[in-house]
Amino acid sequence: MQANIKSTNQKRVVIIGGGFGGLKLARELSDSAYQVVLIDKNNYHQFQPLFYQVATAGLEPSAISFPFRKVFQKANNIHIRVAEVLKIDSDKKQLETSIGIVAFDYLVIAIGADTNFFGNQNMMKHAMPMKSVGEALALRNSILQNYENALIVADEATRKGLMNIVIVGGGPTGVEVAGTLAEMKKTVLPKDYPELDFNLMQVHLLEGSSRVLSSMSEIASEKAKEYLVKLGVDVALNARVVDYDGQKVTLADGTIILTNTLVWAAGVIGNKIEGLNPEVIARGNRIMVDELNQVKGYSSIFALGDIALMTSTAYPNGHPQVAQVAIQQGELLAKNLIGLSKGKAMKTFVYKDLGSMATVGRNKAVVDLPNIKFQGFFAWMVWMFVHLMSIVGIKNRLLIFINWAWNYFTYDQSLRLIIKPKFPKL
Amino acid sequence: MQANIKSTNQKRVVIIGGGFGGLKLARELSDSAYQVVLIDKNNYHQFQPLFYQVATAGLEPSAISFPFRKVFQKANNIHIRVAEVLKIDSDKKQLETSIGIVAFDYLVIAIGADTNFFGNQNMMKHAMPMKSVGEALALRNSILQNYENALIVADEATRKGLMNIVIVGGGPTGVEVAGTLAEMKKTVLPKDYPELDFNLMQVHLLEGSSRVLSSMSEIASEKAKEYLVKLGVDVALNARVVDYDGQKVTLADGTIILTNTLVWAAGVIGNKIEGLNPEVIARGNRIMVDELNQVKGYSSIFALGDIALMTSTAYPNGHPQVAQVAIQQGELLAKNLIGLSKGKAMKTFVYKDLGSMATVGRNKAVVDLPNIKFQGFFAWMVWMFVHLMSIVGIKNRLLIFINWAWNYFTYDQSLRLIIKPKFPKL
Repeated sequence: MQANIKSTNQKRVVIIGGGFGGLKLARELSDSAYQVVLIDKNNYHQFQPLFYQVATAGLEPSAISFPFRKVFQKANNIHIRVAEVLKIDSDKKQLETSIGIVAFDYLVIAIGADTNFFGNQNMMKHAMPMKSVGEALALRNSILQNYENALIVADEATRKGLMNIVIVGGGPTGVEVAGTLAEMKKTVLPKDYPELDFNLMQVHLLEGSSRVLSSMSEIASEKAKEYLVKLGVDVALNARVVDYDGQKVTLADGTIILTNTLVWAAGVIGNKIEGLNPEVIARGNRIMVDELNQVKGYSSIFALGDIALMTSTAYPNGHPQVAQVAIQQGELLAKNLIGLSKGKAMKTFVYKDLGSMATVGRNKAVVDLPNIKFQGFFAWMVWMFVHLMSIVGIKNRLLIFINWAWNYFTYDQSLRLIIKPKFPKL
Repeated sequence: MQANIKSTNQKRVVIIGGGFGGLKLARELSDSAYQVVLIDKNNYHQFQPLFYQVATAGLEPSAISFPFRKVFQKANNIHIRVAEVLKIDSDKKQLETSIGIVAFDYLVIAIGADTNFFGNQNMMKHAMPMKSVGEALALRNSILQNYENALIVADEATRKGLMNIVIVGGGPTGVEVAGTLAEMKKTVLPKDYPELDFNLMQVHLLEGSSRVLSSMSEIASEKAKEYLVKLGVDVALNARVVDYDGQKVTLADGTIILTNTLVWAAGVIGNKIEGLNPEVIARGNRIMVDELNQVKGYSSIFALGDIALMTSTAYPNGHPQVAQVAIQQGELLAKNLIGLSKGKAMKTFVYKDLGSMATVGRNKAVVDLPNIKFQGFFAWMVWMFVHLMSIVGIKNRLLIFINWAWNYFTYDQSLRLIIKPKFPKL
């Protein structure tokens, strides 16, 4: 079956994945000489840095999701398709997808990364990942339902398990979830559940290395840990989780923690795609590309963002899997493709590190900029400003601002609703 | 198993269902001499009059849902339980529920009504009901997914089926859904799907009686129909649907309409509850009550709202199944129960009809007040004001206002997202 996309005399760029990199590329190719087909499993772009606020009932999924069709309403050369890609056929220059065959002149793989459970089957079955708004929403529903269940059990150990929360992975996501839940333990949860004893509840953050936020500066790690501890989070460093049966977590040192909620934010692995030469697939499923983001050995296939492994003198082990790399690669690739259509030579990628940041509960954040590092209240203001400005869409920006202001002044995450579509007929 | 609810020396009122009636009753009993247990399947109250806006991507489910725990944060005598009631044992004065046995001194059944498919199995299987936010969200997801699918089919009849929408039932819900979808056909949908020919799309409203909004005045019905027709809705009166196989609707007169989306808003039936004497269950599963809302033959069991059938000289066939009746009955029953605890006699219910209204697309509504009936733009303003003021919670009111203003000025229902929790582990 041929997918029903009108052929034109334009060359066709097919982009798989509308994350930070794919979306940037498609936007930059709007109204270019190319026909662009953007394929994604969802009909919306997801703003991953705020997933943790969806999980902790601070924001609606819709506030951090943006429909592709809205983004590209005025771009006649962009065609959106909600589909899964099954296989690349590089010889025929076409994709097999859930909606039929899609031919391409240039293919850009921007499928990103998903949660890495490192093969632990029990973890895969019982832990809650947080790599999509759908997963973040499922985590919210699960936490709230556990508190409802805690009310009706007589046994204290069981109740403790329902109230405890264990977060594995001390990166930005783990730190942000832990901080917010610790705040909620002090503020909204005891008000919502006056019948429960919140001394039973403990938020645990387990990190395998010797510091949280290990991709940031030492001072950021130190301060973030200090803030977490002050909020009451039990931070365990050099902690290795070996098993989880849905009720209790076992650590390598034999420690056992009772919890029905284990949030797994401990690593990512590239999403799989069939059809490429296995030799270009490196560790963590990343696809080896050159400094033009061209997949090694393929002249018309590119990969960018989290899924791509590009090494350079400055980054001999590959670039970090963060939004900024994806966005900058998307931007350059658009320029290169447009240049190509005009017969110009392509330029190699140079990553400009704009810094990184993470927030820890109310009023506190840590910020590493290239020339300055700071922490505390001002860092938190900067964190909010940067995230608000990165959100697609003025209305979403406005709604998030109102939600933040509301939650801040009322100490109240107001979205404590367990809502599921009743008939998931799709 | 005993449900884990602390016994006190207060008499216990158990309310099943936190809809308009149950919520009003519980609020009025806050800080009274009773211990109140509010049992609901969900952890939130749903504002049913705006379900249609959730279904048509104008509002988030959370904007019209409100967590019970938030409502009752300051009421120490109110206990919320998310549970299903399995059976009433009136002799032992207790309920069997999914969380164990719950004893009561007084029981109030406020379980409302659900969609009535009148036994049509095919309809039950394929039609989309709209009696919960979950169902409204499922309808939204389904409509959007159908448009995505319409892009990829080559066959025009199939595409027509995916684009057409048939609404069965010309009450307020049917009229409001039809009006909004007809607006969307003219505004946002062609912009989102420039590859589709919207001449293929038709919104059908099928009503079994001789007029839409048959519970309102003749002039309201007439005007509503006029507005719908002007918007391009195909309104069929005296139309009886006999079958639907998920792809085509068959009417009694042999007419066939192709559609993958049939919204069923054609009738309600009381939710079932076990354990009452079958003789008190009247047509439509309603529970027969006297003018004190006391279930006939039971001294400590009451029923109110949609589930209750109370006849009076003014309403020989029972009161209408609308929010106002439920709210007023909840209010009176609270007074009566409080009076009872002080040894006062109970007062009989007299319904004060405050009027009714419905909106049809942008700028148009029909309003019947006791002394005056009006239609058009001013009616629409009144409709908006009344609905906004009825919403629980200042923040929800603010967010709805912003959404409405945004959608109005941009002609853009911005929530066109197909989001589902990924792991519905609950």
